Formats: sequence, C-alpha cells, structure tokens
Amino acid sequence: MAADQQTPALDLTMDPADLTAALVDVESVSDHETPLADAVEAALRRLPHLSVHRDGDTVVARTELGRRERVVLAGHLDTVPLPTVDGSLGAVPAVRRREGDRDVIYGRGTTDMKGGVAVQLVLAQQLREPTRDVTYVFYDHEEVASDASGLGRVMRNSPELLEADFAVLLEPTNGTVEGGCNGTMRFRITTHGKASHSGRSWIGDNAIHKQAEVLATLARYEPRTVTVEGLDYREGLNAIRIGGGVAGNVIPDTAWVDVNYRFAPDKSLEQAQQHVRETFPEHAIEWQDLSAAARPGLDRPAAAQFVAAVGQQPMPKYGWTDVARFSQAGVPAVNFGPGDALLAHTDDEHVFDDAVRACHRALSQWLS
Amino acid sequence: MAADQQTPALDLTMDPADLTAALVDVESVSDHETPLADAVEAALRRLPHLSVHRDGDTVVARTELGRRERVVLAGHLDTVPLPTVDGSLGAVPAVRRREGDRDVIYGRGTTDMKGGVAVQLVLAQQLREPTRDVTYVFYDHEEVASDASGLGRVMRNSPELLEADFAVLLEPTNGTVEGGCNGTMRFRITTHGKASHSGRSWIGDNAIHKQAEVLATLARYEPRTVTVEGLDYREGLNAIRIGGGVAGNVIPDTAWVDVNYRFAPDKSLEQAQQHVRETFPEHAIEWQDLSAAARPGLDRPAAAQFVAAVGQQPMPKYGWTDVARFSQAGVPAVNFGPGDALLAHTDDEHVFDDAVRACHRALSQWLS
Repeated sequence: MAADQQTPALDLTMDPADLTAALVDVESVSDHETPLADAVEAALRRLPHLSVHRDGDTVVARTELGRRERVVLAGHLDTVPLPTVDGSLGAVPAVRRREGDRDVIYGRGTTDMKGGVAVQLVLAQQLREPTRDVTYVFYDHEEVASDASGLGRVMRNSPELLEADFAVLLEPTNGTVEGGCNGTMRFRITTHGKASHSGRSWIGDNAIHKQAEVLATLARYEPRTVTVEGLDYREGLNAIRIGGGVAGNVIPDTAWVDVNYRFAPDKSLEQAQQHVRETFPEHAIEWQDLSAAARPGLDRPAAAQFVAAVGQQPMPKYGWTDVARFSQAGVPAVNFGPGDALLAHTDDEHVFDDAVRACHRALSQWLS
Repeated sequence: MAADQQTPALDLTMDPADLTAALVDVESVSDHETPLADAVEAALRRLPHLSVHRDGDTVVARTELGRRERVVLAGHLDTVPLPTVDGSLGAVPAVRRREGDRDVIYGRGTTDMKGGVAVQLVLAQQLREPTRDVTYVFYDHEEVASDASGLGRVMRNSPELLEADFAVLLEPTNGTVEGGCNGTMRFRITTHGKASHSGRSWIGDNAIHKQAEVLATLARYEPRTVTVEGLDYREGLNAIRIGGGVAGNVIPDTAWVDVNYRFAPDKSLEQAQQHVRETFPEHAIEWQDLSAAARPGLDRPAAAQFVAAVGQQPMPKYGWTDVARFSQAGVPAVNFGPGDALLAHTDDEHVFDDAVRACHRALSQWLS
C-alpha cells in the first residue's frame, strides 16, 4: 500500500467494519506507522469541527465546544509484525469472509486494534456536536518498548492536549468494559552466605538455604482480592525466577529470587513497595521494574453514563495496559473495544463485523 | 628430561628428599606419565626381591615372602599441569632452597605427590625382608576423571595384585594419619506446578514456591558427627545449585535444587540413599553421582601398629580420596604422606626435605 510513497486516502463515512478492513490494508507494523498516520491526519484535517495536532506518528484531534466534560478515545496505529506462516489468513490485505451467519475480517491488526481505530475515525467524522468534548488520539509504537510509546511521548511533550475527565482505550475487550488495571513490579531478594568446599560445609554458610524463608513467605502469602469502584482486582505475589550455586562441591555464598507483585489499583506504587518491604522485613529489596496500577474511574459521571450506554457489567483488567498511563496523568481510563484479546498477535487474528459496529453504536449513543 | 625419549635412570639408594627432586625433574602431567612410569619400572625390575607388573602406566611391585599380613603403599605418578605463571618457582626442574633452618624443594608435584612416591621407591629398595608383605603401587591418571584412574583400572584388570589387609596412600597429610573418608552423593529434587501468566497467577501453580519446603528441610537439617573407629566424621547436607523460571511474567511450572550429601563411613551407599529418602519423604530423588565412604580400618592389627609407628593421633579425612577405592575393594586404607595438602595444585607447591624423611622413617619403622 505504501509502496508508491503516497498517502492512502481514507473515507471516514464508511461503515466501521468496512473501514477496519481498509485500515488493515495499510501495513503499519511498529516503526512503519507513517503512511497510516499520514492518512489519518489527512482525513481528520478535512473535518472542520476538529483541531488536529501531530507529534511524530501520533495524531490528536479535538472538538473544542467548551463542554463541561472532556473524554478521550484512544487507540494505537501500529501492529506487531505480519504473520510469516505461508497461507495464513492473517496477512495484508485483509480477507473478508462469511462464517455461519456472521461476516468476519481476517488480517494483522483486525483485533489489535484497527477495529477500534476504525470506530474512533467514524465517530470523529459523525459527532459534529457531541455531548462531551472528545479528544481522539491515534498513537504510534504501542507494541514495542514502553518508553517508545507515542502516547507517552505526547503526554511528555503536550500534556494539555490529553487533559480529560475520562478516557476509553479501544483495545479489544470483546465489547465489555474492562476498568483500570493492576500494577506490576519486579524485585530481587538476594541472600548471602559464605563459600566453602562442600566437604567442609561447616566452614561455610549456605546462601541457598537462606532462600527457604523467602520462599516460605511467598508460599504462605495469601493474595488479596480488592474491590475498587465495584470491580474485583485479584492480586498475586510470585517468584518468577530463582538461581544460585557455582559448582558441585561448593557451598554457595549468594542465591537470589526474582518476584513479581501484581497489585490492585487501591495502592500507589509507593504503597505497593511499602507492602513488599513489610512482607520481607528481613531482606533488602532490589527493585527491577515498577508500573503503577490504574483506577477504573467508574465513579466519574462520564464513566457512569458510559457504562450505562454499553449496558454490560464492567470487568476488572488484570494485565497492565496504557490505561495506566492515563491514570498516572490523572485521567481515569477503561478498555472497551471490539474483538477477542486472546486473538491478538496470533496468525488467526480476526474481528467480526457486527462487533465493530456494536462498539461504534455504544460509543455513539454515549456521546450523542 | 623426556626430550631425548630415553628412560631417565632413577637411583633408589638416594636420600628420599633428593629422590623427590629427581622425580620432579621428570615431567609427568596426566597423560604424560610414560617416561616416569618407565623409569620407575626399570628401577624396580633391578630389585630381585620384588615381582614387578605393568598395566598401562601403572607399575605394581610386590614382595612375595608369604607373610601373614600384606599392606599396600600407593601413590600416583601424575601431576596437574605445570604452572604457567612466569618466574614461578613451581616449575620443572625442581628448585631446592634453604628457608630458615630447613631445606625445601619447590616444583610441580613436590607436595602432590612425588615426595610420597620417593618414599615408596626408597622403601621398595631398602626393605628386602619387611615384617609384612608389601605391594607398591605407582599409578597414572589420578588427577583427571575418576574413571581414567590407573588404580581403578588395575582393580578391574588384576584385582588379585592389590589384595591386602591394609593400604596407605602417600597423599600429602603433613605427616598425620588421615583415616578413611566421607562418602559423597549428589541428587536433584524437582518441584512441579502449572505455568500461567503471572498477571493471572491463580490459574497457575508456582513450582518455585514448592521449593520452600525442600529448602526449609535443608536449613533445619542438623548434620551429624559420627565416630567411626575413634575418628570423628562430620557430615553435611547442602544445596549446591538451584534454578527455575522462564520469563518475567510467567508462573514457573518447574524448579529444581541440587543437593550434596557428605556422609560418614558408618553408612553404605545404600544406607546413605535411604537416609536421603527419609529426609525428603514427599519428593522424588534423582541421583546424580554416588561415591561410597571408606572406613579408616584402624581396628586392623596392621593399622594399629602403623598408627603406633607414626606416633600421632589419627584424623578423619573429609574429602573423597582413592582410599575409598581400596575400601570398596575390601581393603581399609588411610592417607599418610609428606607435604601440606593445601599447597597441592598451587604455583607455590613445595615440600620440606625433613617432612619427606620423617615419612620414610615412620613407614620404615612400621615395616621393619
């Protein structure tokens, strides 16, 4: 599609399922989002009710109606690499089929997340006077390292562009509202001893044996389920790697265990760290990575009306997603999008036409 | 020395310290023992009171006097590789110096164990009518893999050559009798669980956490000290390596710990294995290597008179040595030799002349 270096034209008046297929046809693997970002920017600039901003390959378009509330609809433009399996349906261009009594679109990005992006684009075209001001965000580099994210970059460069009362990320949730997300952190606990020949072990001090206490703490730890704004977040505290020892006849002088703590959005990063310190009061904690949790924000008026428009019981999100970026910026956020997240990144990636249309209908109703 | 491919001549009437230096001059790193084995064989064949046997680079010489008791004096001909440090004293040929009021010989093999081999050779020449029949064993490949050992090979090929009531290995013990040795075995305990994403850890079952119980057993294990024939053997049960885990966001489905058990010679290999099974009744034991312990044999008449001749309190041997090979063949064995075992394999390897002579004197007195 991008072979002729021209910007593909996108028709935002299309049916959202048709637009999904058109977006899949524009290859946009991470680092190659420019043609799609150009097309999105060009299409949005044709709409006079939006002010359009560009930062790298991220496009932000805003209504400026002076409404009492502003909401964000956000989605990423990039996909993971194209499938390499010969004969796979998950290729560019999209393949449209009928399965039973449903129409379906196969191809890289159908689930994650060009269905959601298509819904954003159609809403941007249709909602000339939404009941809330809307900020549409189309960002790059979501599928690679966290610090490459275009969303994070715009938050640093132009935070005012993203100020809002509530945000919806149109990641695939099968049409359910998934609120907030657990935080996650990894840390290492190293135990120390004294090396010696294992034939004279009384001269040494076995560092592996000292992990007994650490592992016993983990084994008897009872992870909590924390209800936040009506959603039940299940936590977890788990060893993910352990190591120690140098040779078959040496008492080891160090051993380590790496632990992953997944914690509910009732706790700040600092509170979660404090909980870890209190759980292992005898040990030094070596932090490896820290990602804050995100509250679902379902207590905000915009959110309550959104949930009512969707008409389904919201669910908690366990994995860490970009809603946490919004949450850290003070904007409660949820995931809500068409497609099954379990198909994301697979060669079998696909989305049903009616799922894309249902998502569009719910958001349209909420904002009209 | 071996450069001209000729067999170096050894004069067994020399002072044992002088002969030690002469032996050091014949390089005999493992796999290169042939010139030294040839020299030893040639020198022994000149002694009509000995019957001499050759197996590879192992030489066995025996008195055949029909005595009521037979003892073995054994030592290995090979050394670890020569020091590579420039200017080191631990080189071929030997360097003889005076330190304070003592004469000392530096060079590879001085401690481990050409001092002991020199004592064997001088005794072989001097003891024409020993009070016990004597079997002198000079063997190859002690410093490499256990199954390459010339001693083990002769035990398999010609066990009758090594039949005896008692054996002395002239490994360096600083002139003390070190009796028997602890056995050693290694085994693995693997714990099993169920993998899952660490964000949904309740779906999985953490195999690392299950090591808590194994490590707690090790941590609270109180190793025994077992007195065997008057010698105190300290045991040990120690984790030597631990591992598990695949990625930062995966609940691991397996984890393992490798354990080394050092056990006193009151137990057979089978009894030691049974003790391990009873210590970890809930876990499958995967045996990795098994080496039996050796009793000191100090209850034998030959041994008692040997200890009296040495005139020092015997000590237990903790590390596994070739005495265990003799013990397994039904021959109680001890270590007794000149030099400090802590200098073995170092660039500073050396032995004092008077230590070699004292060892010779004690053995000569015992066998005369």
